[in-house]
Amino acid sequence: MTARVLTLLTDFGLDDYYVAAVKGVLLTRAPTATLVDISHTVPPGDVAAGAFLLGAAVPWFPPGSVHLAVVDPGVGSHRRLLAADSPHGWLVGPDNGLFTPLLAGARVWSVTRGDLFLDSPGQTFHGRDRFAPIAAYLLNGGAAEDLGPEIDDPVLLPQEPPTLEPGCLAGSVIHVDRFGNLVTDLPDGWIPEGRAIQAEVAGHTVSRYATHYAEMPEGEPAVIPGSLGTLELSLKNADLARFWGVGRGARVTVRWEG
Amino acid sequence: MTARVLTLLTDFGLDDYYVAAVKGVLLTRAPTATLVDISHTVPPGDVAAGAFLLGAAVPWFPPGSVHLAVVDPGVGSHRRLLAADSPHGWLVGPDNGLFTPLLAGARVWSVTRGDLFLDSPGQTFHGRDRFAPIAAYLLNGGAAEDLGPEIDDPVLLPQEPPTLEPGCLAGSVIHVDRFGNLVTDLPDGWIPEGRAIQAEVAGHTVSRYATHYAEMPEGEPAVIPGSLGTLELSLKNADLARFWGVGRGARVTVRWEG
Amino acid sequence: MTARVLTLLTDFGLDDYYVAAVKGVLLTRAPTATLVDISHTVPPGDVAAGAFLLGAAVPWFPPGSVHLAVVDPGVGSHRRLLAADSPHGWLVGPDNGLFTPLLAGARVWSVTRGDLFLDSPGQTFHGRDRFAPIAAYLLNGGAAEDLGPEIDDPVLLPQEPPTLEPGCLAGSVIHVDRFGNLVTDLPDGWIPEGRAIQAEVAGHTVSRYATHYAEMPEGEPAVIPGSLGTLELSLKNADLARFWGVGRGARVTVRWEG
Repeated sequence: MTARVLTLLTDFGLDDYYVAAVKGVLLTRAPTATLVDISHTVPPGDVAAGAFLLGAAVPWFPPGSVHLAVVDPGVGSHRRLLAADSPHGWLVGPDNGLFTPLLAGARVWSVTRGDLFLDSPGQTFHGRDRFAPIAAYLLNGGAAEDLGPEIDDPVLLPQEPPTLEPGCLAGSVIHVDRFGNLVTDLPDGWIPEGRAIQAEVAGHTVSRYATHYAEMPEGEPAVIPGSLGTLELSLKNADLARFWGVGRGARVTVRWEG
Repeated sequence: MTARVLTLLTDFGLDDYYVAAVKGVLLTRAPTATLVDISHTVPPGDVAAGAFLLGAAVPWFPPGSVHLAVVDPGVGSHRRLLAADSPHGWLVGPDNGLFTPLLAGARVWSVTRGDLFLDSPGQTFHGRDRFAPIAAYLLNGGAAEDLGPEIDDPVLLPQEPPTLEPGCLAGSVIHVDRFGNLVTDLPDGWIPEGRAIQAEVAGHTVSRYATHYAEMPEGEPAVIPGSLGTLELSLKNADLARFWGVGRGARVTVRWEG
Repeated sequence: MTARVLTLLTDFGLDDYYVAAVKGVLLTRAPTATLVDISHTVPPGDVAAGAFLLGAAVPWFPPGSVHLAVVDPGVGSHRRLLAADSPHGWLVGPDNGLFTPLLAGARVWSVTRGDLFLDSPGQTFHGRDRFAPIAAYLLNGGAAEDLGPEIDDPVLLPQEPPTLEPGCLAGSVIHVDRFGNLVTDLPDGWIPEGRAIQAEVAGHTVSRYATHYAEMPEGEPAVIPGSLGTLELSLKNADLARFWGVGRGARVTVRWEG
């Protein structure tokens, strides 16, 4: 049997023992799994930031991979434990919206199989005591149907899709990357080809369009089609987000002459 | 043969080539090992911080795993190179107290097998030149008895266990996690069930008790049984350690009416 | 077939989805590869910093490993995609000098096999769309000769080797590590044994020589032979780089009496 891939996204940070304890449980129960970190530096409790990263990373993994994610401010409460069979692979984590970008077309279960769980101290570490055992069960080929009742109402984050009107596309900054690029939710296929455009965010105006960074002049921000199929705003060899003081959630419009 | 697990904890950081060089040596000598990072951001030279993380993470890994740890301000001096067969798996690292929480019931050897070591430049990188080869030797099933003389006096960190008196449990903060939780060494089983308690740390008083974060009101710290079986002090959706300015080593008491 | 090692060095950071997407593509196309991170926190666009880490880490990995590195400010432009068969293993990344320390004795190809590449959105993420597929191709035993034309002019970073004159060795700080050690390019074999030496950097003078940290007195910097075969300047249990305010690129001389 080929080793199956288990990806891991949390807000546990890299300085603590939490990620290692989860991996120890996984490798104890599913010794041949190939573990891959997506990120562990999601801001504490920031479910939306975790959801963005999962939506961007998960689809690139092999079919049949198991994706374990824990950003879980409601740990220990009555929020459900979710397992899902999605078009992008198996998903395991808290039912709090973390998997919002991946649940279209998925079957979802509320996991109630207490016999799988670890009887460890406290109720604050379901990553170790519940989610890791569920993920290991799926890695080992366990049937999702036996995990608990199927549900049709998983929690989803509120989403405000971008809007297209004649000559104007409007949306928001959904991510700022390490390089200071402002990633928007504006699909780059929605703007007409070869037309002059003007983007606006937080009072700043950008009229240059480029297809890669080297093409941009130094010091002048540009709109650029990004690696997720949406438009980004970038400044060559510099951190545009910091330069402008703009972050996630800022509204963005792109206009063009009819 | 199933791949065996090798965990790695160091204070080498994530920005340098040190961790990668250690892994290169390990994979050269033990190509089928499954490598897992515990943490590499232990504060430089902070043996006690490394020992805490090892004690919390190592027991979750499969039996027979090899745990390589390097927080080693004495590198190159006459401090011994330690290999141990412990109830929690194999341990390899400097003999400076780093494995204190794991050595009960262990057999310990002082490694003197110079033929195993790499003849690399300098005497400042035993992680690469000595500890990685020792760990690979054990991963490959080498006999610990052949590594050097067995010893009965490994260095142990001084430990001050918590004290229990009628109506009062006293100890200290042994860790601050990424979320700002103050992890104490006070066993949560030592306080009477269902009794009102009052915790005190650095002049702050906490009288609320909760079993999980969602149960806590915003803005009011609570005592909560943590994932290591000890009490923690927490503030919902906030960083209590920063809010109070309290860190590792602070004294904590919990009192209750007789 | 034994799993082959794929190392990964980027400037993508640890907070983003970029590293995970690259790994997803790698594991989709080369499922049995053993992935090892060298570092992902190379300062954005700092090709020289990436080159240093690669030169220090790569030689420790097993023969036949594939080393994928992406620090690529020219992504999407006409800079070439490089694959190399070097004495230190296979190298894959942008042709911008990133592999300078490893290219001596290597055969180098400019990769033009468009059929290998992913047809993903944007031209800003060749790590995912081009370099990962090339690396997977080599991991799977693909022939480098079929990747594109062999070239003899890969981009190399300008290098200024240290100079040796009677009684004086001169060079520079090439790296500052996590501990604040100043790593120089001065080969430690070039200074005479047993002679008193005097090092100078940025107006600071050091006349103590030590072979390991424990031998150094607190508070007094020393010259020490480092783990790369070059001299380092260190301060016991302290961060000398921060203490002096000295960084990469500073000139260093070591003098001795004829």
